[in-house]
Amino acid sequence: MQAWNARLTSMTPGACEISLPMSAAVTQQHGYFHGGVIGTLADAAGGYAANTQLMPVSECLSAEYKINFVAPAIGDMLIARGKVLKAGKTLVVTSAEVFAVHQGKEKLCAIMQQTLFVIPKGSPKVD
Amino acid sequence: MQAWNARLTSMTPGACEISLPMSAAVTQQHGYFHGGVIGTLADAAGGYAANTQLMPVSECLSAEYKINFVAPAIGDMLIARGKVLKAGKTLVVTSAEVFAVHQGKEKLCAIMQQTLFVIPKGSPKVD
Amino acid sequence: MQAWNARLTSMTPGACEISLPMSAAVTQQHGYFHGGVIGTLADAAGGYAANTQLMPVSECLSAEYKINFVAPAIGDMLIARGKVLKAGKTLVVTSAEVFAVHQGKEKLCAIMQQTLFVIPKGSPKVD
Amino acid sequence: MQAWNARLTSMTPGACEISLPMSAAVTQQHGYFHGGVIGTLADAAGGYAANTQLMPVSECLSAEYKINFVAPAIGDMLIARGKVLKAGKTLVVTSAEVFAVHQGKEKLCAIMQQTLFVIPKGSPKVD
Repeated sequence: MQAWNARLTSMTPGACEISLPMSAAVTQQHGYFHGGVIGTLADAAGGYAANTQLMPVSECLSAEYKINFVAPAIGDMLIARGKVLKAGKTLVVTSAEVFAVHQGKEKLCAIMQQTLFVIPKGSPKVD
Repeated sequence: MQAWNARLTSMTPGACEISLPMSAAVTQQHGYFHGGVIGTLADAAGGYAANTQLMPVSECLSAEYKINFVAPAIGDMLIARGKVLKAGKTLVVTSAEVFAVHQGKEKLCAIMQQTLFVIPKGSPKVD
Repeated sequence: MQAWNARLTSMTPGACEISLPMSAAVTQQHGYFHGGVIGTLADAAGGYAANTQLMPVSECLSAEYKINFVAPAIGDMLIARGKVLKAGKTLVVTSAEVFAVHQGKEKLCAIMQQTLFVIPKGSPKVD
Repeated sequence: MQAWNARLTSMTPGACEISLPMSAAVTQQHGYFHGGVIGTLADAAGGYAANTQLMPVSECLSAEYKINFVAPAIGDMLIARGKVLKAGKTLVVTSAEVFAVHQGKEKLCAIMQQTLFVIPKGSPKVD
């Protein structure tokens, strides 16, 4: 996401916001933000939100997520807001909403629900 | 996905395979294929599989998908295989499996189930 | 759900609450509310929430849902609260949270995200 | 599910089949099998399939599932077939298909993908 110029624009306990400016690298043939980019941003926003409640002792990996695409993502900025819905010892459940900002107005374009798997910080990433 | 050098390596009625070589653009900090890339590839494989049963009259859009990440994606190639599970008039349901190819051996790394929304070919992409 | 004594305890535009008292019919071997009951209640709460925005012209069917079980459902009442996240012409996306009420205190036990398919009122229920 | 007369009709390593005869208890107002029953059966079929690879040392709990309803479930029998797609140390991923049997012919009516959480046999069911 660094290559895309994504930025962490807010991080509070249990929540996280990531913003991504429009660029050729993140759009598809119609000039919309690419679905893969939207999924990646939502996944990351949920994961960072979870990490706010786990770090520095533990961290987490995406076990799975489910995402609905509800409108084309047209605009000059994409914003993903993740929040923790339930933090268990082994699993964390989050949701994220992704908005496209067009002419200063936010429009909801995707909704995600995610399960993360808690691991001790620095452990090998294999189940 | 063109920028990533993804290739359509098989397409039969109701099924589709996409292959993606390892490169700096598609890996994360540990050298694994990036989760966002895996999701994008799975989503595309399901969508193309659906299109084999819709084109040239109709096409489809991803309404939603759910993906499980089951192993780190390490290797020199990523292969996504999508297939149609049910083709309705309005909705198509597919699944896809994503494999990482390491030293000539395929390892399952992600599993997706997806719902697509059928639209007349060329119609505006707004619900 | 009638046989289970479920009741519609609140219905406002875009939202719905269903309550279900504990009984032998809805619990499993450990005395918790059964997972199938929780899924059914969440699915219904999302569906009724969607119908508040569709009726009397249209109605809807569950195309799919995804549910996370985040805590055992122990208590004397189960409450499912559904709300519409996006109402499109063809698809409606909702979420629902399910709480178990134990000694007057609500505990979150499941979280659902759902896609519904809009149909003209009274049409045959086949895609 | 005992009250519904569900029966375990097949169980092999990594797979499980559950069959459920039509009755008033499991149908909705149109005479179809109820969506909640279909979800419950799919969830159970995935869970038992996972248990074939865990027992007697461990067992598992549904962390989450996602289910697509692809056709009305009309018939005199409902059959759910679950299989393990990936068995990890902590998480197991399964899928299940649910068929309605009408006049001796099976029709696919639902498709599920599920994540289960492995726990030592007999441990308290709380995350």
